[in-house]
Amino acid sequence: MKQVAPWRADVTFDQQGLVPAIAQDAETGVILMVAWMNADALDETISTRRAVYWSRSRQRLWRKGEESGHVQTVHDIRLDCDGDVVLLKVTQERGTACHTGRASCFYRQLQGQGDDAQWQIVDPVLKDPEQIYK
Amino acid sequence: MKQVAPWRADVTFDQQGLVPAIAQDAETGVILMVAWMNADALDETISTRRAVYWSRSRQRLWRKGEESGHVQTVHDIRLDCDGDVVLLKVTQERGTACHTGRASCFYRQLQGQGDDAQWQIVDPVLKDPEQIYK
Repeated sequence: MKQVAPWRADVTFDQQGLVPAIAQDAETGVILMVAWMNADALDETISTRRAVYWSRSRQRLWRKGEESGHVQTVHDIRLDCDGDVVLLKVTQERGTACHTGRASCFYRQLQGQGDDAQWQIVDPVLKDPEQIYK
Repeated sequence: MKQVAPWRADVTFDQQGLVPAIAQDAETGVILMVAWMNADALDETISTRRAVYWSRSRQRLWRKGEESGHVQTVHDIRLDCDGDVVLLKVTQERGTACHTGRASCFYRQLQGQGDDAQWQIVDPVLKDPEQIYK
């Protein structure tokens, strides 16, 4: 019987067996995206040094870039104090992490005050999404 | 009847009414912590520009720094493409976000290969936790 790897004991997966994983650009510090990992996704990320997530919508492993070529090469893997969030420091191949063709998924900024505050798009589209997934 | 603020429509809270919120140092880009917000926590964060989370363990609003003085002043609030993760760019008052007395909660780094990989503490304790919460 295969032993469970020791790193697994420190990771607190939620009731669905998932932890959120942040992908941060290793060079610039820009937060590119947040996705989810199950134990298999984290295992494969550790062994391949390519970011692998669990797609909640498709209910299967999602090897980032498998369709788009927008692979994330992983340089550093961190765990927070509670063991329930993973941080990946990555190089984002082809420069765009977001399916909208932007560098980062966090392209909406809250502007305005109080009840009038609204999310405004502040980051440019770098690549036509139709070209990413053609 | 009070209208619901327009920014709320774009935020996708989960079945527990929560979204994860990342606190990132606005100057250095270091990811300090991840906590959870409900609509009231986000509302108060927007209006006060101090980070307010929802404590899942205590089931109440958690005004970061209310006991420790380690307040987070919020400069920028971002939302990701799916609307289900919030990013705060903050100044961390007193320099330590983590209850362990470290600057960041992500102080454990995966070291080693494959099944022998283990989490190693790589960031120093800057402040005695007993002094933070005395």
